[in-house]
Amino acid sequence: MSVSTNPNVLSIKHMAFGVKDAKKALDAYSKFLDVPTDTAIIDYPKSKNRVALFQLGGIEYQLCQSLEEGGRFDAWMKQRGGAEGLHHICYAVDNIDKALDHAKAQGAELRICQACGVYGSHPHPEGFVAFLDNDAGGIEIEFMQVYTPEELEKYNAFKGI
Amino acid sequence: MSVSTNPNVLSIKHMAFGVKDAKKALDAYSKFLDVPTDTAIIDYPKSKNRVALFQLGGIEYQLCQSLEEGGRFDAWMKQRGGAEGLHHICYAVDNIDKALDHAKAQGAELRICQACGVYGSHPHPEGFVAFLDNDAGGIEIEFMQVYTPEELEKYNAFKGI
Repeated sequence: MSVSTNPNVLSIKHMAFGVKDAKKALDAYSKFLDVPTDTAIIDYPKSKNRVALFQLGGIEYQLCQSLEEGGRFDAWMKQRGGAEGLHHICYAVDNIDKALDHAKAQGAELRICQACGVYGSHPHPEGFVAFLDNDAGGIEIEFMQVYTPEELEKYNAFKGI
Repeated sequence: MSVSTNPNVLSIKHMAFGVKDAKKALDAYSKFLDVPTDTAIIDYPKSKNRVALFQLGGIEYQLCQSLEEGGRFDAWMKQRGGAEGLHHICYAVDNIDKALDHAKAQGAELRICQACGVYGSHPHPEGFVAFLDNDAGGIEIEFMQVYTPEELEKYNAFKGI
């Protein structure tokens, strides 16, 4: 199989870190780096995560704490001797179906979305997302086709039902 | 102690990943993401690392493999159940002395540079660097004051002696 790089990848949408305590991790980013101390920390009941989200160096960081033992980030840290770290990088793509077709042609498999129980492209709050079951150098890969303003309106209207 | 964010931080200079095999990790970045397949993989005798370096999504990635068992990245992975991952983020700063003074005023300590055996700011090939002994959400923090063209010339002349 010849290797062909994935031309659908546009940029880094966000980086998601697994942390034990989102508040403590945020404090370190505020003290030692340049992250506002009043950054919001939000609980997400569906994914059972507590997340501090901010921009740093032009990149969106998400510090993600599992609210339940054995949750997505808690289980991931336990597999790594309890160490916190970078769980996944979400890459913005121009067309998620094409990006997944390309990845699959290069041997990729899909990973289930733990929050939604779905394989492959499906709607999330900010766009259509999918996870690969193949990491790159230990980092899980997520793709997101960010919504157009019209798609975002449709998603929010659907969610409001 | 009141928290004051570090205004000296400008941007992300690079992200360094600990990997078992730089070639295999690079292959995954090429197949599933948008990284040239002919990216160079370079051995650095001083730091005893093999590194694949590329730009992705506007960020410099360094995939770092220890060339010796027990080396910097090998030991780090062993502490994490053998898992590859993001070892540190290097932040470009406007003035490394000011950045370190700020971090220390916020309770930071310095970590030794394993390649050079030095604590605090010292010259590396691309700029003056220093490591904090305080991570942020599990990610080691490096600061770099990137050389001006004149400083780079001076560094290269010194190295050439």
